[in-house]
Amino acid sequence: MAAAIDKPIRFGILGCADIARKVTRAIHLAPNAVLCAVGSRSIDKARRFIADNAPHTSTEVKAYGSYEEVLDDAGIDAVYVPLPTSLHLRWAVAAAEKGKHLLLEKPTALCEADLDVILAACEAGGVQFMDSTMWVHHPRTAKMRELLSDPDRFGQLKSIHSVFTFCVDTGFLQNDIRVKPDLDALGALGDEGWYCIRSILWAADYELPKTVTAHRGTTKNEAGVILACGASLLFEDGKVASFHCSFLSNLTIDLTVVGTNGTLCLHDFIIPFEEGSAKFSLGTKSWFNDLVTGWLSLPSEHIVTTDLPQEACMVNEFSRLVGCVRDSGSAPEKKWPTITRKTQLVIDAVKASIDRDYEPVEIVV
Amino acid sequence: MAAAIDKPIRFGILGCADIARKVTRAIHLAPNAVLCAVGSRSIDKARRFIADNAPHTSTEVKAYGSYEEVLDDAGIDAVYVPLPTSLHLRWAVAAAEKGKHLLLEKPTALCEADLDVILAACEAGGVQFMDSTMWVHHPRTAKMRELLSDPDRFGQLKSIHSVFTFCVDTGFLQNDIRVKPDLDALGALGDEGWYCIRSILWAADYELPKTVTAHRGTTKNEAGVILACGASLLFEDGKVASFHCSFLSNLTIDLTVVGTNGTLCLHDFIIPFEEGSAKFSLGTKSWFNDLVTGWLSLPSEHIVTTDLPQEACMVNEFSRLVGCVRDSGSAPEKKWPTITRKTQLVIDAVKASIDRDYEPVEIVV
Repeated sequence: MAAAIDKPIRFGILGCADIARKVTRAIHLAPNAVLCAVGSRSIDKARRFIADNAPHTSTEVKAYGSYEEVLDDAGIDAVYVPLPTSLHLRWAVAAAEKGKHLLLEKPTALCEADLDVILAACEAGGVQFMDSTMWVHHPRTAKMRELLSDPDRFGQLKSIHSVFTFCVDTGFLQNDIRVKPDLDALGALGDEGWYCIRSILWAADYELPKTVTAHRGTTKNEAGVILACGASLLFEDGKVASFHCSFLSNLTIDLTVVGTNGTLCLHDFIIPFEEGSAKFSLGTKSWFNDLVTGWLSLPSEHIVTTDLPQEACMVNEFSRLVGCVRDSGSAPEKKWPTITRKTQLVIDAVKASIDRDYEPVEIVV
Repeated sequence: MAAAIDKPIRFGILGCADIARKVTRAIHLAPNAVLCAVGSRSIDKARRFIADNAPHTSTEVKAYGSYEEVLDDAGIDAVYVPLPTSLHLRWAVAAAEKGKHLLLEKPTALCEADLDVILAACEAGGVQFMDSTMWVHHPRTAKMRELLSDPDRFGQLKSIHSVFTFCVDTGFLQNDIRVKPDLDALGALGDEGWYCIRSILWAADYELPKTVTAHRGTTKNEAGVILACGASLLFEDGKVASFHCSFLSNLTIDLTVVGTNGTLCLHDFIIPFEEGSAKFSLGTKSWFNDLVTGWLSLPSEHIVTTDLPQEACMVNEFSRLVGCVRDSGSAPEKKWPTITRKTQLVIDAVKASIDRDYEPVEIVV
């Protein structure tokens, strides 16, 4: 772990969502970040959250009984916002207007128009924006990118397939915010499909597809929220991608990226099986033996270790960029909001294709 | 290996295709089969094939300078037909009419109507039909079926994804029969998609999908033969499947089958990495740890060993059924032609969807 810096980025958290526990630990682990405040509609809930999740923090963490108080605290540089998606527009914009750098939970908005309002507020406020997609910050992801960029070992990208499913219980199907049209109206598409789409864009080096066509067979609940869906994406140069996400199937996290010369494959791209080391496999110029009774060479297994868990790598990178703005007067890094916007554009296109009886939807930038 | 039986099934082979080398070895390895004749349009080619590929056979293998002579040989019980698909209709029907049991290379026909003529001829001739899809005969496949049938470890089937790609060279793209409209007009769909579709049907216990919709982005050569394509399948109960096949991407053979409780995954379902043992993984009731920083239990790896390679298992099973007809007067086993017909129906639907600008195509039985 890198040494702690002199003036760490001071975080506030809006809300006590389950996922905030993980990010609280990540802020603790990141050498350049410190948690300073947690706001909840109930100050007791904020206090309990701090007692349960931030007991090891050396500095005092303030509990606030509202989100506003966190945003009004001059001692806070940045906020992490894990509120239900329908509340993002209001609170992300409020944070940016108060000059707070913004680490926003995914899905970032209910639609791209809402996200654009958030991003405009960040730009106007001069604050750094980043969505809280953790896996892209794992050093494994950088290693995989290096191999995908190798014209000899991987070649030209041809197809991508991504899956994220998990099987929820009856309680989730009745009560979780992710199945409520007034809270997380994008359902499984926003919660799981977000990662699949991000992984496809990542593999395509953030080129947007030309056309998105949802797969027939979307499952919705009685309120019309998506519980399972999938789509195919077609890119300008002919490469293709597909994904499938579902709240109704066993936990599966697959990413397969195939090029002319290579095949990248992993089964835990969003949450690595283990925290300290993560694997992927790469087959290169794979072929059969002469009689086609076996393979000449097997895909090779690559292991990437990490001292910091991926969510702490994310906090570390976000805090580094925030530090550049706060301490050196740099402009915010545009890479992260650009990637977020592309992800949201594809989410919207999948939704539109489902709503239009599975017609293809053109992505217009 | 089981002991050789007294009266093995006597095979003839029509044509000297590359794949016939593998099946010749399989006939040699199977305890209940023996190769008796090879027919080619050139008797020299037939002689060379026998010298190169059947030198260890104890009985004499006859070389014939025509396919007819193999079919007219009263000492032949069954024929293996690896001819180009466009010739299947003629020679498969001729074989059945001569009372020869039929092991037919895939894709079995250019369309389901042609296949129905072949199957009717087999029924009229009282001969056993089987297509030459080898992987379904591997003992690993039976083991996987057992797990997919387990309501506790796998649960209800929800989604299937299958990939078969390999990257061919310029010579293949110019000269191989699989890119010629007059020889194997189904191209990659017939050659590779066949396996993907079979794997989907296998996982669904041979239930046919209700609707098939090809994915936009089909690649064709100048003659209009498919070089890469994919499709999504929707079943009556809402389960979904998708596949992708291509002649233009690195060798990749993936099958992922996801149920409510389990995830089956393997990367070599068509041709196992190694001949003697084959793996697959099964995740069951997979979930994250409390903080979602890792998985509570990893998918388990299963290894299935086999004395006979899968193609010899196929010859063995085909010969066993032929023996029942020849020696015990049993009726031919209908399971195999039924499975073949379902596979061909889905192939036709994918083709139709591509031809109709990616409209969904209903499967009508």
